[in-house]
Amino acid sequence: MVYGVDMPMTETASGRADGGVRSIMRAVDLLDLFDAEHPWRPLREIVTLTELPKTTVVRLLATLEGLGLVADRQDGTYGLGARFLQWVRLSEAMWEVSEGTRRVMRELVDRCGETVNLYIRQDASRVSIAQQEGTTTVRSVVTVGAQLPLTQGATAKVLLGAAPAPVWELLERRHPEVDLAALRREVAGTAEIGYSVTHGERELGASSVAVPIRRHGRVVASLSVSGPTSRFTADRIGGYVDAVTDAAQRISAAGLGSVEVFL
Amino acid sequence: MVYGVDMPMTETASGRADGGVRSIMRAVDLLDLFDAEHPWRPLREIVTLTELPKTTVVRLLATLEGLGLVADRQDGTYGLGARFLQWVRLSEAMWEVSEGTRRVMRELVDRCGETVNLYIRQDASRVSIAQQEGTTTVRSVVTVGAQLPLTQGATAKVLLGAAPAPVWELLERRHPEVDLAALRREVAGTAEIGYSVTHGERELGASSVAVPIRRHGRVVASLSVSGPTSRFTADRIGGYVDAVTDAAQRISAAGLGSVEVFL
Repeated sequence: MVYGVDMPMTETASGRADGGVRSIMRAVDLLDLFDAEHPWRPLREIVTLTELPKTTVVRLLATLEGLGLVADRQDGTYGLGARFLQWVRLSEAMWEVSEGTRRVMRELVDRCGETVNLYIRQDASRVSIAQQEGTTTVRSVVTVGAQLPLTQGATAKVLLGAAPAPVWELLERRHPEVDLAALRREVAGTAEIGYSVTHGERELGASSVAVPIRRHGRVVASLSVSGPTSRFTADRIGGYVDAVTDAAQRISAAGLGSVEVFL
Repeated sequence: MVYGVDMPMTETASGRADGGVRSIMRAVDLLDLFDAEHPWRPLREIVTLTELPKTTVVRLLATLEGLGLVADRQDGTYGLGARFLQWVRLSEAMWEVSEGTRRVMRELVDRCGETVNLYIRQDASRVSIAQQEGTTTVRSVVTVGAQLPLTQGATAKVLLGAAPAPVWELLERRHPEVDLAALRREVAGTAEIGYSVTHGERELGASSVAVPIRRHGRVVASLSVSGPTSRFTADRIGGYVDAVTDAAQRISAAGLGSVEVFL
């Protein structure tokens, strides 16, 4: 990744880039509106959520539909197009963690009962590339592959510990509202103590314990246990930290599989 | 889908659109370069294949990388980013055909030995949304989800039989090299006889037999059997036509499942 201070094209909010870059971001913002809870959306809803003029949305939908990235139903709602099928197997194969890693993650779920995620940093975001859901009815679930903020959450503090200076510059430009000095202190503290615990930073009532996964001495990912804050009580946190640390050490020793070429 | 003669934004070749639309098309053209045979590509290769200036490609890659759609390896090659994981389950779930349809397709493979595909029309392209591979070493394989031309191949002639006028207008604009009058005659003949047989239209040495799948009296998809031309001999074609027609009638009667909302 080439970071350029003069290239604001990696902004996440499409409103802050220009021209063609903005169009690509708008397209991705629109495609992001579709998830398991909202597989179809009416035009009206897409206009509201993208905060774009209706004419722009209609034009964008027509473009995406022509490219097979969006499809419409007979009832006038829109969803993901069949073209995504083209990338399904390839992206899964490329980002698959080793069977050994998945086994350690499942064992960690068995031990804690809570959802386990493996996060990596991508540019100035964090992304879960593997998830094993917890065993309880009320559990933490994130969308694998979705970009989450690097300014919030336990895994963010772990991953930022290994982030180069340009990532901090991006954060400064994108998140003027965040106290980066405070975040730097938290990141430094996390690196020193070896784990991070957060409660409700990104979402009220959601807690997480995260530790680094190292390969060849470098932090390449973060393993976390997440669940409702009500179960992350003081008397349990210690056990969670121990369990996730053990698991991360096993994964660090064995490796994550072929996905490491990206990390 | 709103077709507009004054909206050339649905052109497939990015060179023929303008502004933001072109950027989105270029981005998709670039992402299309990655497939099972080419999961990673060096910058040099991407520049050559996209036929874009190197500076444009570098800028585009930086944008896509910032959005998590592209990732780079330590050796300087690029591949699909982890963000695609976000759409994997959803797109698979949305475009999944019913278990009954898959069973009929597998039985058709057992009967013919050749690869079976279920194609739909999307805008002015055709796309396989389900595939059962043949049982022989030399077999026909297409990428499920990939946009293929509606001007070539047996399933194209079946699907065009149900295409509205604006689709023909798009084909006229996009494929000035194609004799559309001749194609119209072939499509009419296919509709009359109920099947289409092609040899080497899209790829030398590849043959196909295709028939329509109808729902509520309307052609919504095309079922095909494809393989090397050397096995699609005159004495075998009749059997293939019978087999694929039987299978299509069973699918037409039972339905394709929830994917029908898009068809």
